[in-house]
Amino acid sequence: MATQEKYELKQIPIGVGATGKRKETDSMGEVEVPADHYWGAQTERSLIHFAIGDDRMPKQVYHAYGYVKKAAAQVNAAAGRLDQWRADAISKVADEVIAGKLDSEFPLFVWQTGSGTQSNMNVNEVISNRSIQLLGGELGSNDPIHPNDHVNMAQSSNDTFPTAMHIASVIEVKKHLLPRVGALATAIETKAKQWHDVVKIGRTHLEDAVPLTVGQEWSGYAVQIRDAFALIDSSMVGLYQLAAGGTAVGTGLNAPPRFGEEIAAKIAELTGLPFITAPNKFAAQGSLDAMVNAHAALRSLAVALMKIANDMRWLASGPRCGLGELVLPANEPGSSIMPGKVNPTQCEAMVMICIQVIGDDSAVAFAGSQGNFELNAMRPIIINNFLHSARILADGCEKFRVFSVEGTTLNEKRIAQFVQNSLMLVTALSPVIGYDKASKIAHKALDEETTLKQAALATGWIDEKTFDRVVDPKTMVFINN
Amino acid sequence: MATQEKYELKQIPIGVGATGKRKETDSMGEVEVPADHYWGAQTERSLIHFAIGDDRMPKQVYHAYGYVKKAAAQVNAAAGRLDQWRADAISKVADEVIAGKLDSEFPLFVWQTGSGTQSNMNVNEVISNRSIQLLGGELGSNDPIHPNDHVNMAQSSNDTFPTAMHIASVIEVKKHLLPRVGALATAIETKAKQWHDVVKIGRTHLEDAVPLTVGQEWSGYAVQIRDAFALIDSSMVGLYQLAAGGTAVGTGLNAPPRFGEEIAAKIAELTGLPFITAPNKFAAQGSLDAMVNAHAALRSLAVALMKIANDMRWLASGPRCGLGELVLPANEPGSSIMPGKVNPTQCEAMVMICIQVIGDDSAVAFAGSQGNFELNAMRPIIINNFLHSARILADGCEKFRVFSVEGTTLNEKRIAQFVQNSLMLVTALSPVIGYDKASKIAHKALDEETTLKQAALATGWIDEKTFDRVVDPKTMVFINN
Amino acid sequence: MATQEKYELKQIPIGVGATGKRKETDSMGEVEVPADHYWGAQTERSLIHFAIGDDRMPKQVYHAYGYVKKAAAQVNAAAGRLDQWRADAISKVADEVIAGKLDSEFPLFVWQTGSGTQSNMNVNEVISNRSIQLLGGELGSNDPIHPNDHVNMAQSSNDTFPTAMHIASVIEVKKHLLPRVGALATAIETKAKQWHDVVKIGRTHLEDAVPLTVGQEWSGYAVQIRDAFALIDSSMVGLYQLAAGGTAVGTGLNAPPRFGEEIAAKIAELTGLPFITAPNKFAAQGSLDAMVNAHAALRSLAVALMKIANDMRWLASGPRCGLGELVLPANEPGSSIMPGKVNPTQCEAMVMICIQVIGDDSAVAFAGSQGNFELNAMRPIIINNFLHSARILADGCEKFRVFSVEGTTLNEKRIAQFVQNSLMLVTALSPVIGYDKASKIAHKALDEETTLKQAALATGWIDEKTFDRVVDPKTMVFINN
Amino acid sequence: MATQEKYELKQIPIGVGATGKRKETDSMGEVEVPADHYWGAQTERSLIHFAIGDDRMPKQVYHAYGYVKKAAAQVNAAAGRLDQWRADAISKVADEVIAGKLDSEFPLFVWQTGSGTQSNMNVNEVISNRSIQLLGGELGSNDPIHPNDHVNMAQSSNDTFPTAMHIASVIEVKKHLLPRVGALATAIETKAKQWHDVVKIGRTHLEDAVPLTVGQEWSGYAVQIRDAFALIDSSMVGLYQLAAGGTAVGTGLNAPPRFGEEIAAKIAELTGLPFITAPNKFAAQGSLDAMVNAHAALRSLAVALMKIANDMRWLASGPRCGLGELVLPANEPGSSIMPGKVNPTQCEAMVMICIQVIGDDSAVAFAGSQGNFELNAMRPIIINNFLHSARILADGCEKFRVFSVEGTTLNEKRIAQFVQNSLMLVTALSPVIGYDKASKIAHKALDEETTLKQAALATGWIDEKTFDRVVDPKTMVFINN
Repeated sequence: MATQEKYELKQIPIGVGATGKRKETDSMGEVEVPADHYWGAQTERSLIHFAIGDDRMPKQVYHAYGYVKKAAAQVNAAAGRLDQWRADAISKVADEVIAGKLDSEFPLFVWQTGSGTQSNMNVNEVISNRSIQLLGGELGSNDPIHPNDHVNMAQSSNDTFPTAMHIASVIEVKKHLLPRVGALATAIETKAKQWHDVVKIGRTHLEDAVPLTVGQEWSGYAVQIRDAFALIDSSMVGLYQLAAGGTAVGTGLNAPPRFGEEIAAKIAELTGLPFITAPNKFAAQGSLDAMVNAHAALRSLAVALMKIANDMRWLASGPRCGLGELVLPANEPGSSIMPGKVNPTQCEAMVMICIQVIGDDSAVAFAGSQGNFELNAMRPIIINNFLHSARILADGCEKFRVFSVEGTTLNEKRIAQFVQNSLMLVTALSPVIGYDKASKIAHKALDEETTLKQAALATGWIDEKTFDRVVDPKTMVFINN
Repeated sequence: MATQEKYELKQIPIGVGATGKRKETDSMGEVEVPADHYWGAQTERSLIHFAIGDDRMPKQVYHAYGYVKKAAAQVNAAAGRLDQWRADAISKVADEVIAGKLDSEFPLFVWQTGSGTQSNMNVNEVISNRSIQLLGGELGSNDPIHPNDHVNMAQSSNDTFPTAMHIASVIEVKKHLLPRVGALATAIETKAKQWHDVVKIGRTHLEDAVPLTVGQEWSGYAVQIRDAFALIDSSMVGLYQLAAGGTAVGTGLNAPPRFGEEIAAKIAELTGLPFITAPNKFAAQGSLDAMVNAHAALRSLAVALMKIANDMRWLASGPRCGLGELVLPANEPGSSIMPGKVNPTQCEAMVMICIQVIGDDSAVAFAGSQGNFELNAMRPIIINNFLHSARILADGCEKFRVFSVEGTTLNEKRIAQFVQNSLMLVTALSPVIGYDKASKIAHKALDEETTLKQAALATGWIDEKTFDRVVDPKTMVFINN
Repeated sequence: MATQEKYELKQIPIGVGATGKRKETDSMGEVEVPADHYWGAQTERSLIHFAIGDDRMPKQVYHAYGYVKKAAAQVNAAAGRLDQWRADAISKVADEVIAGKLDSEFPLFVWQTGSGTQSNMNVNEVISNRSIQLLGGELGSNDPIHPNDHVNMAQSSNDTFPTAMHIASVIEVKKHLLPRVGALATAIETKAKQWHDVVKIGRTHLEDAVPLTVGQEWSGYAVQIRDAFALIDSSMVGLYQLAAGGTAVGTGLNAPPRFGEEIAAKIAELTGLPFITAPNKFAAQGSLDAMVNAHAALRSLAVALMKIANDMRWLASGPRCGLGELVLPANEPGSSIMPGKVNPTQCEAMVMICIQVIGDDSAVAFAGSQGNFELNAMRPIIINNFLHSARILADGCEKFRVFSVEGTTLNEKRIAQFVQNSLMLVTALSPVIGYDKASKIAHKALDEETTLKQAALATGWIDEKTFDRVVDPKTMVFINN
Repeated sequence: MATQEKYELKQIPIGVGATGKRKETDSMGEVEVPADHYWGAQTERSLIHFAIGDDRMPKQVYHAYGYVKKAAAQVNAAAGRLDQWRADAISKVADEVIAGKLDSEFPLFVWQTGSGTQSNMNVNEVISNRSIQLLGGELGSNDPIHPNDHVNMAQSSNDTFPTAMHIASVIEVKKHLLPRVGALATAIETKAKQWHDVVKIGRTHLEDAVPLTVGQEWSGYAVQIRDAFALIDSSMVGLYQLAAGGTAVGTGLNAPPRFGEEIAAKIAELTGLPFITAPNKFAAQGSLDAMVNAHAALRSLAVALMKIANDMRWLASGPRCGLGELVLPANEPGSSIMPGKVNPTQCEAMVMICIQVIGDDSAVAFAGSQGNFELNAMRPIIINNFLHSARILADGCEKFRVFSVEGTTLNEKRIAQFVQNSLMLVTALSPVIGYDKASKIAHKALDEETTLKQAALATGWIDEKTFDRVVDPKTMVFINN
């Protein structure tokens, strides 16, 4: 029944409306699938063979695949390789996939074939059957929309799965992660400005050092995050390159010349993102280097955030037996046994997120190194870790900003006390009396439990007036900045 | 309403039967919670503050907590610290928790307070409210079962959360993982016996080497898995030690003397597993070393399985342009574009699982190193990764066994051809004519594209009869084994 | 004796010419140092307290420090803060440091203070004493060149050690690593051109796939390396930013305004590399993010090289029982027991190098996350791992190129056989007869051990003429490339 | 010249006493080697092909190989396979190897063949030539001691290199590492006893918690180290199993039956350590699982030490703006710019050591997973990382003990102040007045900046007498311990 006249694209709500089992076939034979789902034989085989843990292929991969299938259908139709009415059906269903309306039809596990073929076939089967439904055909008949011959036309899993990985990753990063990273940086910059002039004691090696301002300290945090933002953003360049068009091994067999350029342009048009075709398909399919690099950029953010979250919880430690310079928002009771305890829980969650991202990163790099010949068959683990890391960083940044950074206040009394007590202000004396004498003064004050000034004047090496002029924290903090 | 007479434990099915919101309070004030759930204020606060990604605290932790709460209630009641009717109510609800009947009441995220306090309070709140329901009280009233004063009696999150971690991990390993690991080892041993006498070429550095039998090769796989099994099993020793009794910082404040011993004994009784109290609660709460060690044992299994899965897929490579010694079961079509292609997908899934476990392990070790003072506040990330690794290894072993190992057959024709063609059988000549001459023969055969025998006889260093006697693959394989 | 007239810079060969011990002092008192060395009290203290393993602070760090000290002296002299004759002496000795002539004076271990202060003081002490020697003073007198007041003027370890780290890393990468990476890429590109038309069987999932050419396969390798080269090169941007000028905590206390800009400009002039002052010194001293990012770029190269080295050794496996498409140079006997064995040793060395770099990278990222407040005190471990990774990658690339890639040849006979035998050429039939029928043909040929053509014709679905036209490996490989 | 009569074992000091080059041959032909060294053709080839970085195969591997060669010679001689006079010569030279007297003859790099064959041949060549020298023969003649036929008799690199790895690792751990770990544990236990009764404030989540004693806190550290000690020690069990006897692929070809048992027994006798033959040689040569496991045990120590070193530096932070409970020894000036600064440098070095060990461990596990068929060709990287980790841990433990732990004292005044000020003593009130009221008291004291007692009495919920009795830090600390 493959002539065009018979088919008309109907408006039918999503849903099969059947119970029990339906027979589906693939090149290995018949398989029974649940009759209330669109998926076919290969999806069902994968569900049986790979029911491992709870890790499912992330939905974003399927949404991205929606763009791939729609773009392929339109490019194929425009070139006359695919009937327009077939392309229209596929496009319509692809839109449903993109919109997440068919999410329940994509049940496969992460732990499956390393090429992602089973997820590609899952998409092909669902689009095939849903298209068949819309065109009035019989589910499971592959007619008039065949999962391989039509939905997968001019494609292989080997080129489209990494294409979908890139699309999903870029969207996750640009739409979800980076806005939240930027908002966190902005929130920290706001604090840095607000506390621009609050002089506090610096600490190096955890030990008292010379002063700086709270605003300066937080400006460093902001720069760390802005740098990580830029690094993540620039790692997108590799992800904008799509493997589609390389088909099975990178040569483009069964795809027409320039199919890669055309489908990339179409995907760029559909997503509004600057995707292009990968200049070398053998590298694009044999490696996952661009994904490894992009995850390394996520790790950079984790490394930066871990330092910041640690600083914040240490500076907020106490309230009476710690550093106590910061007061974090008290979001919830901190202890089931110690009444009134409040803990830096957002910082702890952030630290754990950072450690997880660093752990995920090591899995990604390992997997990235394990390609062989024309395929790196470690794709599912890499996309799963990438989207996981991006998501927990994004959400973590948001919660950390809203429930910790924005509500943080200073204990200015404590901050001032520390500055007053610190011995390391002695550093300002070095250019005046030399390092060796300055050092003796500091040791003297510590040993005799006096103020620095008392110790300094007692040595006779400096007079009070000079001391007061030179050892003034406020003048120590804005030399170079 | 806290006198005993008024309360009677009713039989009420699980379910609140309300809609909208209910007011709950904690030490920070009122919070509205969904009226159709048992959880209280602190659970709700956590849900708001930590909606990060999709990682939820694994259910096994709550089931394990069920044992903790039941054991605590019974120990407290036996000592007269808790009314028996209160203990009975708590025990009954704890049984529901253990059985997974209240799983929907434990919605919290992994990324939360590092002590796990919010999950402990989630348990306390749910047991409190469900007990109140069974005793005819009012949800949210904390009366007559208070989440802290009764459900959490003599406990802190600091000692009970690691206790629940250990219980959950031991049960996962002993009940789920090790049986599957053992079954895989057995399946491989069966193959090793079956193929005991099939002589094949050995390969070192991927290069042709001297022969061994397929059975010998597989015996090595089996031993690797058995060794990993033993290592995992022995890592349980650290997990049998429970922190409960240490309360907030390890001293046991607010718990009676010997509470640690008693609750451990009770948990051992309830679970049928040999739990004991940790000899030093400061180490047990300030570190998570036993968890780190146990995860390292999981990693050992991953390292072993990766080698085996890689060997299998390489030995099965082909069918015509690879090694092709093994024939793996053809479980599903392998390509969306290449018709008739079959891939070693179970091996690929296993390799990815192994890499993930190795990545998880690096997160666990990192987190394990980040304790401070009386608490390692990296507990949620560690238990989540541990249970994740154990689960995917367990399920992976099962699928790998059923869908790959057990159905693997030999291509004996190809195996025999390789043995016949290999030049490294020359090694057997070394003791007869010396390494140097033997080496010349091998090079000669390779250069001249002859058989080893032709090259050997051509040199005149050995006669045919001796050659045939010495260079007999069958006699080369059972020297030492 | 600090007036200028008395001092004249003499020409004295390097060497103290003394035996036994010399007394040196620092702010903690007297220390005996070996009289035949220039170093002072703090170096000696560090040698005693940190004799841990065999890891010494890499010499490149000291060479880089030579630039820092010379630049600082010149900037300070130009501004009139330091007598010109003092600056001249320091500059002259700094040149000796840069040239490696004083390498034996820098004995400190990697495992030392996390700020690198001891190595900075080692430099200060050696320059001080060598300058004193050249100026006719007494070693250990700190007169007329004081290690802190003069050599370290306007500097802290906190800002100069990361400055030296960046300089050393950039020089190592630009002068040593990248040229060797580029040469390897070129060598591979040469092979890719040479083998542009040699049709071979593709492999995905290790299984036979559709053909491509050897040149295409190697073009993918080249692109992977070129991409990694570009990534490493772009990671230098972060390293060009220098912390110098921030002094103790980033504020620049004891350094004059714009000292950061001036010293960076001077270092750029001296090294011929585009160093600039870091825009935010708090981030530059509190984090080591730029180092972490640069190491991640090294890891990208390792990930790419691992794939390539693995491919090469697999493709060369055999000679008779493996894939055998490539013939690697036989550089050395491969076995102490198997005569005539030759192994892919360069590939193995490269794989091990890659794994080590990936391991080093995980140490670097971990350390990078452990900063606190105004200092990341994990500097020695990071610079040591960075220079280690860069060096073994550089040397590894060179050996791999010279002793493996350049001498690799093809076994064209074997390559052609594989193409001829492969069943996956059936893929080209899909657009003609559909995926399902094509699949049946492939299975039929495999089951019946026939050629693809035999099986295809037997089905009657295609005639011989069409088969011969469509199933022609040579036409399958240059569609899209 | 291979008849026994002619040879007599002479006493000749080590040293070749020649200059220029000497010709050596192997199965690939002639090579010129430096005439002043004993090594032969294959060593020289490796030096040329693998001059990569500065990583040399650790000397301990060669010392261990000395035992292997001596044991093999003696077993072979006892069975009549090797002339006794040959065995005597080999044994004598092997003793020189064991004693480190020939260390300069073992120059090879880590990055070499993955089997370690080149290092085995280096040993074979050196023992051959040195034996020839002692027997009056001509260097390079292989006569009367042939490197392969005699020194390597019944051996392969494939079985002896892992044997040497195990021997070297066990000796390093038992003789060097564990004694230093034990001494550190003892030093900490001494402190724990000394400070048994000093009540201090506990900290969880970095926040003030209920009190414990300093001795309790340190007892936790000691237990962590003792547990790691036990884990490392038990990991030796896997290392006691030796592959020797498996020869090329595990079958034992060219070795006589029971050679494995006999050489293991001989090695046990020579080393005084309980080595046995590995029960399955295919696993012993195809995997390096026992090494991976043993390194994981080293990592456990690193994880524990990192927590301890971090605690110590935080507790010593200050002196005036930190926690300041501990006073660490002031070993050296801490800053080149801040006079009088003292830093927790031993703790920092220890933290870096721990991170390096964790990084090394990830390289080891990765490499451990990369075995193929009858060989894991990642041996050099694994033994190099193992010995590196063991060594820096050993030396680090010693320095940390001597220069930090043993000299640490308490600032008891500060410790007492913290206890007095802390609000978390309120926890002791919970069992008396309930969690909710206790919580209100803590919040009240914090908000109103009063003591806990003031706040408690102000509520009227408790009288002073009861408060004083219940809220007594001294009674809070020894409940369960």
